[in-house]
Amino acid sequence: MSDSAYVHGYSIEESQRLSDQANTLSHLLHHDSVFHPAGLVLEAGCGTGAQTVIVAPQNPQCSFVSIDIAEDSLAKAGENIKGNKIKNVRFQSADVFDLPFNNESFDHVFVCFLLEPLRKPVEALVSLKRVLKKGGTITVIEGDHGSAYYHPRSPAAQATIQCLIDVQASMGGDSLIGRRLYPLLVTAGFEGVSASPRIVYADAGRPEMVDGFTRKTFIAMVEGVRQPAISRGLITEEEWNRGIADLYRSADSDGTFCYTFFKAVGKKS
Amino acid sequence: MSDSAYVHGYSIEESQRLSDQANTLSHLLHHDSVFHPAGLVLEAGCGTGAQTVIVAPQNPQCSFVSIDIAEDSLAKAGENIKGNKIKNVRFQSADVFDLPFNNESFDHVFVCFLLEPLRKPVEALVSLKRVLKKGGTITVIEGDHGSAYYHPRSPAAQATIQCLIDVQASMGGDSLIGRRLYPLLVTAGFEGVSASPRIVYADAGRPEMVDGFTRKTFIAMVEGVRQPAISRGLITEEEWNRGIADLYRSADSDGTFCYTFFKAVGKKS
Repeated sequence: MSDSAYVHGYSIEESQRLSDQANTLSHLLHHDSVFHPAGLVLEAGCGTGAQTVIVAPQNPQCSFVSIDIAEDSLAKAGENIKGNKIKNVRFQSADVFDLPFNNESFDHVFVCFLLEPLRKPVEALVSLKRVLKKGGTITVIEGDHGSAYYHPRSPAAQATIQCLIDVQASMGGDSLIGRRLYPLLVTAGFEGVSASPRIVYADAGRPEMVDGFTRKTFIAMVEGVRQPAISRGLITEEEWNRGIADLYRSADSDGTFCYTFFKAVGKKS
Repeated sequence: MSDSAYVHGYSIEESQRLSDQANTLSHLLHHDSVFHPAGLVLEAGCGTGAQTVIVAPQNPQCSFVSIDIAEDSLAKAGENIKGNKIKNVRFQSADVFDLPFNNESFDHVFVCFLLEPLRKPVEALVSLKRVLKKGGTITVIEGDHGSAYYHPRSPAAQATIQCLIDVQASMGGDSLIGRRLYPLLVTAGFEGVSASPRIVYADAGRPEMVDGFTRKTFIAMVEGVRQPAISRGLITEEEWNRGIADLYRSADSDGTFCYTFFKAVGKKS
């Protein structure tokens, strides 16, 4: 987004990670991402379309305008929906802080993993509110890296997670934003705000979550900040390696892992 | 229980707290505490009957034997079920590590907040398995104090929670046991183990949870270790007071609070 670098790159591995995440989590996050009444939906920060390919098909009564500031991501998103034969989405390059739309253009706004890297999340929400019709809804989904815990516990593993939090904070983001969605939406002036946690839990009895979430989503995301964390002196290479090995222990047959996303819905009155 | 002191006293305030907790959380924890096929249920560690008064009436097809090692708790539990006109419970004083029942006496075992203070939770589960019939089920519910997080974040508040964790650990307990239920049941030899998180989330849109859980359950529990925490030098009185004030901030209109319980079910084959 315009006001900070985005911690994730747009490598092939990253695209794969975002797709893996969306597939594993789609029910948990999106089973209730259904927009009534039918109308025009603005998806802000669509990235490579990982959420678009889930949410657009389950809302055939709606037309989507999915925006992102990154042109290369939009190109991938376009291929993504073509591959999925989705017809109700139009992509557009746009900055969430300077939206090229008239006031009250949209019936619904949908935002997933947009706010976390932003320095000014309330201003982003206020900007989105401008283009939302009166009576329209906003849906916001964000993670919270402070919600991650696991067995066996490990200070070394926790240090690597803290590196992820610190690297994202150094770029102006707040990766613990999930728990703040309710006050953020209220502060931005939305009404009837309802927030709910969506907890991901993985143990050996749920092998698809262990692989799809613990390993390929969460640990992969932590591993994504290896280089900046070590080069900035947040952690030594040895400590890093030990911490990552300990994180993988939580994906063993006697390990468990928890992480919570938050979803909030509000109305413009 | 026999192998460690229990961190909660049995004061009137404590009885009230356990009741408040049970009322607020009953749906979240017990909506699926239903035992099939009908039969004899052993509730181990019933305390003052806070869970008994919820679970026994919703299982009229079953008879309960509810045990605890503390006679004064059992006396209160007896009054509790009489007041609630519950007829399918018999209370008995017993030690979970030395159960006065024959092998394979029960169709189901139900355990809620029993394991946390125990030094040897697996041995407790193995002892309970002995009195369970083949094909019978065990249901275990425990909290996890490491799952608590909140907004606004506060190192001072976190220090008071750490005191609670440390005081419980010093008596041999593990107040972060919730995340370990799956491996504990597997280690104890149960099969088909299924564990699930039960997340409590409170914000100003859910005032009954803010009052019933954030204030009257969680913060009240933390405040319960004020004296031992300060007298053992884990924290100064000033730090304690600041931390508790910060915890109460999470119950303000712009605050949020999360805590997760875990429930696991296994079978004896």
